[in-house]
Amino acid sequence: MLARLQPRVPAGVDLVSWTYGDPPPSREFDLVVVGYTVGYAALGELAGIARHVQTQSLGYDGAGDFLPPGITLSNAVGVHEGPTAEMAMTLILASQRGWPEIGRLQVEGTWSRATYPGLIGARVVLIGVGGIGGQFEKRIAPFDVELVKVARTARDDVHAISELPQLLSNADIVVLAVPLTPDTRHLVDSAFLDQLPKGALVVNVSRGPIVDTDALVEHLRTGAVRSALDVVDPEPLPAGHPLWSLPGSLISPHLGGAVGSMNTRVDPLVLHQIDRLLAGEAPDYIVLP
Amino acid sequence: MLARLQPRVPAGVDLVSWTYGDPPPSREFDLVVVGYTVGYAALGELAGIARHVQTQSLGYDGAGDFLPPGITLSNAVGVHEGPTAEMAMTLILASQRGWPEIGRLQVEGTWSRATYPGLIGARVVLIGVGGIGGQFEKRIAPFDVELVKVARTARDDVHAISELPQLLSNADIVVLAVPLTPDTRHLVDSAFLDQLPKGALVVNVSRGPIVDTDALVEHLRTGAVRSALDVVDPEPLPAGHPLWSLPGSLISPHLGGAVGSMNTRVDPLVLHQIDRLLAGEAPDYIVLP
Repeated sequence: MLARLQPRVPAGVDLVSWTYGDPPPSREFDLVVVGYTVGYAALGELAGIARHVQTQSLGYDGAGDFLPPGITLSNAVGVHEGPTAEMAMTLILASQRGWPEIGRLQVEGTWSRATYPGLIGARVVLIGVGGIGGQFEKRIAPFDVELVKVARTARDDVHAISELPQLLSNADIVVLAVPLTPDTRHLVDSAFLDQLPKGALVVNVSRGPIVDTDALVEHLRTGAVRSALDVVDPEPLPAGHPLWSLPGSLISPHLGGAVGSMNTRVDPLVLHQIDRLLAGEAPDYIVLP
Repeated sequence: MLARLQPRVPAGVDLVSWTYGDPPPSREFDLVVVGYTVGYAALGELAGIARHVQTQSLGYDGAGDFLPPGITLSNAVGVHEGPTAEMAMTLILASQRGWPEIGRLQVEGTWSRATYPGLIGARVVLIGVGGIGGQFEKRIAPFDVELVKVARTARDDVHAISELPQLLSNADIVVLAVPLTPDTRHLVDSAFLDQLPKGALVVNVSRGPIVDTDALVEHLRTGAVRSALDVVDPEPLPAGHPLWSLPGSLISPHLGGAVGSMNTRVDPLVLHQIDRLLAGEAPDYIVLP
């Protein structure tokens, strides 16, 4: 990141690269950008080093447990919403067009045609209309589906989460795009899954614990639902876990935002925050404390 | 089909169901709708049975070899373009987000994260701007890509196929959506593939022979390109064929139009053709002879 940003920062800005695990710098910085794959536990070592922290992730559940007092934290708004919505579309299309079965046939080298449901004409319930939800809505719009949007509270063309029971009863696909909070943990439980029509698809690109894994596994075993999950609980998914092999279960290993173009969106965000600080303003997108 | 259409046809229309292989009807019909999976060789037996044939496919390459003289044939316009464009999006997204590798990891039960290219920001060259091309353009538009359209002759925002060499040289993805004709057979040959940047993705949802399979296999072996093919040459792809297992090769078994909702588009087409005949007009979409 240092080499990419150095030619682009205003004169006088002091950029320093610190590989986490090496001895920490012995001075305080106005802004510390934490690595994309560095765990939140590392935040605990930033007392006296950082005034403000910029993450490279959108979710920040758990970060507050480690952030030292007096330090503010911004999440990476604008970096991952597009790619994560893209992953939701990938999982939906793959599931509706026959994966993971078609993938298994490819591994076996077997040409076997069948009819799969497809996406065209499907009724899609989107839960969450924030950054990812908005990018998802934009991408699914031209696929000739019926999109129903759900959020905590109703507004305009958005239904309240309290209306879910009747909305789920004729959904072909449910997409989870809400942050993980005490309210959304296990939002998808046995009762939720029981409300879905047989064979409906549950898509999660947010955080694993929004789905009660045991309840989902039980509903997959009976063929009651299908699922396409970029995030699971627990992560990493252990070898031998039934979600790897149950029919109708499609898994990707938490790659929502992980695309080759990520830095083309991270760099402008960091430069924007530097400009804010130089102008004497608070950084944007502060979510903690 | 008979049971679905009977309640919807105007009074006086005589609907008859004939299972191909059973003895043929001993009379002539104004319209014969051939089954979706019945091969074109069956057309040869329609002399004296059909005045006009309605297929349930979009492509009709090879049908002319069997159609008896004096019979006209319509292809299934409006039935498969959306689902086939949907399959092109499925193959593109899956490939750009890590399949078939992620599918192999699921079969093994291995959680292994990596960065894949993604679709966002990609340069996509679409060859063919007919029915499938139009449906594809509509669907990919909101994915934040740069779309370059190519057809036989240049017009407005469409480049001529003669410009392909320079257009391919910086393409991330090439999508084939042209019909199979003597001009398009082996359009994708060694020279075409050599023009692409390393690692570019070739997507075919049209007809297998538009790609020279041997040339593609050779370019996959060296990692020069990746491919995502719903159609291949030959079909069915034989067991042990390198396209099943080469890295960067994603295969689906010719499922472009095969989705559960197909009949919701076939039935209105057949009813429309019946209305045309009742009005004393020629059927629409006649493509042969």
